[in-house]
Formats: sequence, structure tokens, C-alpha cells
Amino acid sequence: MKHILTMNDFTNEEIYSLLIQAKRMKDGKVQSFQAKPTFVANLFFEPSTRTKMSFEVAEKRLGLDVLDFSPESSSVQKGESLYDTVRTAESLGASAVVIRHPREGFYHELVTGVSIPIINGGDGKGEHPSQCLLDLYTIYEEFGTFKDVHVVIAGDVKHSRVARSNAYALSRLGAKVSLSGPKEWKDNTLDFPYLEIDEAVQQADVLMLLRIQNERHNQKGSQSQYLQQYGLTLDREQKMKSHSIILHPAPVNRGVEIESELVEGERSRIFTQMENGVYVRMAMIRAALQEGGKTDEYTNQKCTQLTQ
Amino acid sequence: MKHILTMNDFTNEEIYSLLIQAKRMKDGKVQSFQAKPTFVANLFFEPSTRTKMSFEVAEKRLGLDVLDFSPESSSVQKGESLYDTVRTAESLGASAVVIRHPREGFYHELVTGVSIPIINGGDGKGEHPSQCLLDLYTIYEEFGTFKDVHVVIAGDVKHSRVARSNAYALSRLGAKVSLSGPKEWKDNTLDFPYLEIDEAVQQADVLMLLRIQNERHNQKGSQSQYLQQYGLTLDREQKMKSHSIILHPAPVNRGVEIESELVEGERSRIFTQMENGVYVRMAMIRAALQEGGKTDEYTNQKCTQLTQ
Amino acid sequence: MKHILTMNDFTNEEIYSLLIQAKRMKDGKVQSFQAKPTFVANLFFEPSTRTKMSFEVAEKRLGLDVLDFSPESSSVQKGESLYDTVRTAESLGASAVVIRHPREGFYHELVTGVSIPIINGGDGKGEHPSQCLLDLYTIYEEFGTFKDVHVVIAGDVKHSRVARSNAYALSRLGAKVSLSGPKEWKDNTLDFPYLEIDEAVQQADVLMLLRIQNERHNQKGSQSQYLQQYGLTLDREQKMKSHSIILHPAPVNRGVEIESELVEGERSRIFTQMENGVYVRMAMIRAALQEGGKTDEYTNQKCTQLTQ
Repeated sequence: MKHILTMNDFTNEEIYSLLIQAKRMKDGKVQSFQAKPTFVANLFFEPSTRTKMSFEVAEKRLGLDVLDFSPESSSVQKGESLYDTVRTAESLGASAVVIRHPREGFYHELVTGVSIPIINGGDGKGEHPSQCLLDLYTIYEEFGTFKDVHVVIAGDVKHSRVARSNAYALSRLGAKVSLSGPKEWKDNTLDFPYLEIDEAVQQADVLMLLRIQNERHNQKGSQSQYLQQYGLTLDREQKMKSHSIILHPAPVNRGVEIESELVEGERSRIFTQMENGVYVRMAMIRAALQEGGKTDEYTNQKCTQLTQ
Repeated sequence: MKHILTMNDFTNEEIYSLLIQAKRMKDGKVQSFQAKPTFVANLFFEPSTRTKMSFEVAEKRLGLDVLDFSPESSSVQKGESLYDTVRTAESLGASAVVIRHPREGFYHELVTGVSIPIINGGDGKGEHPSQCLLDLYTIYEEFGTFKDVHVVIAGDVKHSRVARSNAYALSRLGAKVSLSGPKEWKDNTLDFPYLEIDEAVQQADVLMLLRIQNERHNQKGSQSQYLQQYGLTLDREQKMKSHSIILHPAPVNRGVEIESELVEGERSRIFTQMENGVYVRMAMIRAALQEGGKTDEYTNQKCTQLTQ
Repeated sequence: MKHILTMNDFTNEEIYSLLIQAKRMKDGKVQSFQAKPTFVANLFFEPSTRTKMSFEVAEKRLGLDVLDFSPESSSVQKGESLYDTVRTAESLGASAVVIRHPREGFYHELVTGVSIPIINGGDGKGEHPSQCLLDLYTIYEEFGTFKDVHVVIAGDVKHSRVARSNAYALSRLGAKVSLSGPKEWKDNTLDFPYLEIDEAVQQADVLMLLRIQNERHNQKGSQSQYLQQYGLTLDREQKMKSHSIILHPAPVNRGVEIESELVEGERSRIFTQMENGVYVRMAMIRAALQEGGKTDEYTNQKCTQLTQ
């Protein structure tokens, strides 16, 4: 594994390998690099709290030094291309770059000229592999398997970079995937069954709510109306199976996608997702830096079992 | 001690304990944490140089890792609540948060749901405990006691978050407190004598000048006129007692609150305050992280003497 | 050496000493400081990617802790003077400051009152010593000498802070210096021969292209026209001597100063310059922190040879 760009680039085995690695990170069983400083540059061209800080914590926990590129005070203002910015980070000594950029597929222009690993921290309406992997991790941690776990992805499917990659990855790993949400946000290129939210809450083992991204579209409409028609109300939560859990990539629009008091309710794994995100990102960065993928014996064995 | 929110929450004993701890920090007698990374998140929702950097230096000197939340590039732009931002920092692994926020009493909504210590780095027109403690430290370092030290707080008392908490804390510790400044900036809820600036300079052991906060009110009027009527001119400085000192929380408006050349004069402790601020903040963070307050034997004994 | 402000302040011996030190940094032969945290404050009042990050990498590689002053969220917004900001950094514990500021000669008001070393990271249309030294380093690395190396500085000479200091420093070290570029950007105070770009490419051992600084002047005109008249086209590159190299301070305006595909061509040392910049800055910071200039025996001997 070198660059980490889209979920499609992973084999199932690689996904499991990352999840197992992340578990070992969480259990404190993997050492950091350190010795002499190894730099990772974080290039975030879009506002982000949790993704950026999560990568930062992951990097520091691995003993890496963080170079923080903030585009608002950088040469990007002077019209420098993304390619030249990344080559600069490389020349200054970065061993890897994490990039979040509003342009879908921004990495295409980079992979030929750049020789350090590129980790996609989110590319516009494209993908967001670290978010996807942390969702997978949280589901796997809960159920111990993906087989026949019914995941309903609910909300603004069309504009979500998470929805598409999650749907395909989960399906590939044996989960049953359904979608839910307003018709105008349906993505007709995704071949999964659509459920009304009232059916969804009864059938889902995992209800994966998506964020309404007001930044990306101008769709108006009363927010409390959205909650009533498509969101997770207190009533609907009552109808969920006893073991079912709620996921949300955050930041949550409280009272829109979900009733505020459910955000920290018993079913919610929203803040657990954030915690797991750190370990998943540690595993990703480690995999990217260790080209050739020197995973340990434990991970290899576990991985072989799971993918048989 | 867990959260550090207002000066009123401290007993006199706790204040002395912090001051003594700060002294030990300054003398290099307290070790840092380190071992594996412990993160402190700094969330500054208002511009600040010295407070933010002072906390940062304090944290790094304690061997802590700093997570720097800059609201302008964060999910706060997406409408995320302060509560969710802090819970995010907690989920990502922060062991404490330092928050500066324009909303007075911002911490009320946080203390129930957040389980890591919250350190108030300034809440609007409310309080600014670390500034207050560094003022106390600097006075104590100078006079070795608070008993009967006459402190005059001069300037924009009404809009100052420092004035109120300083006045009460100093008074409680045995100091004599007076106020000075324009009548329209008098705070009638504060029960301390008012002095004209010309009396004040003659009586004060400590002349604590406040910053004119042009950010907070639109009061106009010639700035040099302010200096003549209410500020510390060269003439007035001549009339101060031989041992008297000048404090100012900075940034100083040179030529407004104080004649420019007095800023680094012999009486001025303005840059000493900044230096002391680092040690005070080290003591605060350490106290917040060590719930149960495991202070050392020396601090305990010294503290008992002082509060008897 | 204490402050590092302009190239003129260096003797030739000091320049060589820095270049040799930088080489030793690059070869991994110089240890870092570390032990207890030593802070360097970076104060960048102008947007910058490479200079700021290069200093940051250099500082971290030396084992120093970095305090990052971003003026947009600091007390500078409250009207604080540069002097007070630097004294604040000093009071908070910074052992040195690196400053980039749009005002030419910003350091004049600082050197008397500030007692920690000031490193000029670029002062408006003034100087940019670290850029100059990394250019010198890259030339020296290539040719092993400055004697009779013909350097042509081409482009917006008049507005370039790099051009002037490079021209004088190179000349002083024995290189032959010429200038090239549009007549309206000629600097008549610089006493070096002017060449048309077509002569320049044939005669230069080093073609040092300058960046068109759209930020600094409003000179209009078609950009591709600039390339044809004054820039390095594919045709012109063909006419360069076999051993000649191309330098550019970056960020490059691709297709303006230089044809895009030459940026990473064989002659180009543009990204090498960035890499070398880190080592040069390590040498500078080390020299500034070690007042009295305790250089090692090797550097002293080598330096004596070179300046004889």
C-alpha cells in the first residue's frame, strides 16, 4: 500500500488488515516510529475540525512530527498549484502528506510526480477513506463481523462522499446495505434498495445518518420538517431493534438529522467513531509509511481467517 | 480542583497553593509529565497573542502535546456548538481543554457533559483566572505578602474581565483595593473606594493599569486626552512611592494608559507579568490534570503557614 | 553572530562558515540541542509557504520547539506594535525569533530593546538572507567554488529582495554577476552588466530566474508574452551550456518565468534549493543561538582555506 486514495483501491484483505492494525493501536500494542524526526504534512484546503485534528493526534501518537499547511497563509494565495505545493512539502522533508481538497479526484495530478505517500483526507464529493474505515471499524467492533449486518445509510446520499464508498465497501465485506432519505437526494447510480425512514429504523442493525451539507447545496426547507420526515426522532428510536446502533460522521446538526438528546444516547456511537478515527488513521499512516506492508504475524493470521 | 473557571471557585488556600507551585515551576523544581503523549486542546474563539502562546509554552514545558483548534478553519463554521466541539476534542484524546470564548459564562453548558478539565482562558466580560493569578503571583513575588498592600486598579473597570476578579481575590487575601478611572467606566456593583489618578499614584503600592478595550465599546475621545486625565504620565510616575510597581495586562496602548517610555521603566513589571504567566499556567494545568490535587509536602506546609 | 539581518552584515568568512555548517547538517554530522525545551518563535506577517515551513522543519530538526505566531489571530489586530509583540515572545520564553514582515528594515526598531537573536525571514523589498544563503549553498554544492562562476539574475530585478543581496554577495565571493529582464524593471542603482535573455542563456553557468511578484506591483501585460520576451522557453534552454543550472526562489509562475516542463527538468535545481534551504536555516539558527560562534574545528579549518 502506498497512496491511500479511494476505498476501491483496497482489497478486502487490506481493509481487514487495517482494521486489525487499528485494534492493536487502540490496545496500545504497536510502537511508534520516533528516533529522528519524521515529518507528515497536513494540507487541508477545506475547513475541518475532526478530520484534521484526528490525523494530527494519530500522527503525534505515532511519534511523527506534524507540518501544518494552512492554505490561507500560504503560497496558494500566490496562485501556486497543488502539485507544486505538495512537491514543496516533499522537498522540505515530509515523508507523507494528508490532503483534503474540494476538487474531486485532486490526487490524479499528483500520483505521477510525487514520490511520498498521499493520503486522501477527503476529495470534494469524491471519497473520504479514513471516515469510511472508521465507520467500518466501529461496526466491526460492535458486531465482530460484517456478514449479514444490515446497514441503512440515511440522508443526503447524493452529496455525501461517505455514502458511496461506505455502501460499496460494506457490501463487498458481506453486509446488507440499504439507503433512505428524500427522493431529491437519491443517487440513481447506486444500486441498493431504498427504504422509508420508518421501515429503516425497524430493520437496521446500523443506522448510519448522513450530515446535511448546507455548505454544498442550497436546498432550502424547514429543518424541523426534515427531522419529522426523514430524521431520527425520539419515536423512531423507540422502534429500533434492541441491539441496533446509530452512526453519524459529525458535525451533527442537532434537531435536523437526529433529535438532540439521542446524540449521546445509549445507541449512539457518534463520539466512539471519533475516538476510533484516531486509531484507524494511525493504522493508515503506518501502512502508507511502511511500503511493502510489513504487518506483524498476528495481523496476517487474523486477516487470513477473516477473508477466507 | 478540576475545572478552573472563576476566581470565586478558589479558596485562599488553593490560591496560595497555585502561587507556590508556580514558584516551584519558575525555580525548575517540578518535573514534567511526558512518557506517552498527553494532549491538551487550546480552543481560542477570540484573537489573543499572549494568553494563547503562554498556555502553549506552559503546556510544552510540562511535556504535554498541544492540539490547536483555530475556529476560523474548523467545524464551528459549519454551525457546530461549543459543546460538540469540546466533546470532539475529548473523543480525539485531549486530557484537558483551555477555552477562550466571547460568551460570558460559556462553561455553564459544558461542565455537566464534559468529563475532562476545562480551563477558562477568558469568558467575554466575565473572568480571566490565569491573568488574575499571574497578577497575584507578580505582587506576591514583589512584596512577599498581600496583607495591607494597596492595589489601585485604574482605567476601564466596567468592561474589564480582569478588574472584578482581581479586586475580590486581592481583597480576600488581605490587600487594600481601590479603583480609579473615568466616571462613565465606573462599576457601581463593585464596593471599593474610588480615587482620582493623582491621589492613586501617591497611595498605591501597586498601580494596576487596565487596557482600554476598543474592541468592546465605542466610547470615543482623544487618546492623548485620556493619558492626561486618567493615565500614567511621566509627571505622575515621579510622585509614586519609591517601592511602588506598575502592572498592565497588555497589550499596552502606548501613550494612552501609560506614557510609552514607562512601559519598560524600572517600576514596570509588565514583561515580568508575561514571564510569570507561563509558570502560573503550568501550575494551573498541572492542578487540573491531577485531580485530587496531589501537591507536594513543601507546598502543603508553606500553604498552611500562609493561610493561618 | 547574533541577529541575522542582511547579507552585508556577513564577512565572506562567515558566509563560508554557514555554508560548511549547512553541509554538515545535510550530512547528518551535527547534533541537535534538545535536553529541555528551547523555543523559537516564528512571526510571519506575510503569506509564505516555503520559507515558514522550511524554518519550522529546520527548527524541529535541531530539536527546538516552535511557537507559531499567526498575526491574523493575534494582538496585532488590537494594534500592538511589532516591538511589543517580539518582547512578548521573548518574555514568554522564546530563545530566538524569525520574522517576516512587509516593512523594509523592520528590524531597526527591534535590535536595541530585544535581547534574543532576530533572524530576518524577509523584510518587504529589503533582504531575504536565508534565501540568499540557500542560493549560494546550491551554487557552491554544484561548482565547488564561486570563483568565475557566471550567474545571470533574470527578471523583475527592481522589486526583488533576493536580487540585490544575491548580486552583491556573489560578487564579493568572486562570481561574475550579470542581470537580465525588462527595461522597466531594471534597477539603476545596481552596477552590473545587463544582458538580453538570448545572450544570457548562452553565457550563464547559473541562470537565476526571479519570480514575477504580482503581489507587489500592478504592471500588466500578457504572461505568455513575458515568457517569449524575457523568460526561459524550451528553445532558449537548448542553448544553455551543458553544465549550466537553473535556479528560481519559487513559487514558480509556470509558463511565465519558465516553461512549465523545465521546472523539473535536468538543469533545474528548484526543488533542490528548497531541500537545501532547510540545512541552511539550521545553520543560521544554530549560529544565532550560539553567540560567540562556537563552530567546530573542521568548519574553522575549511573556512580558512576557502577565504585565503
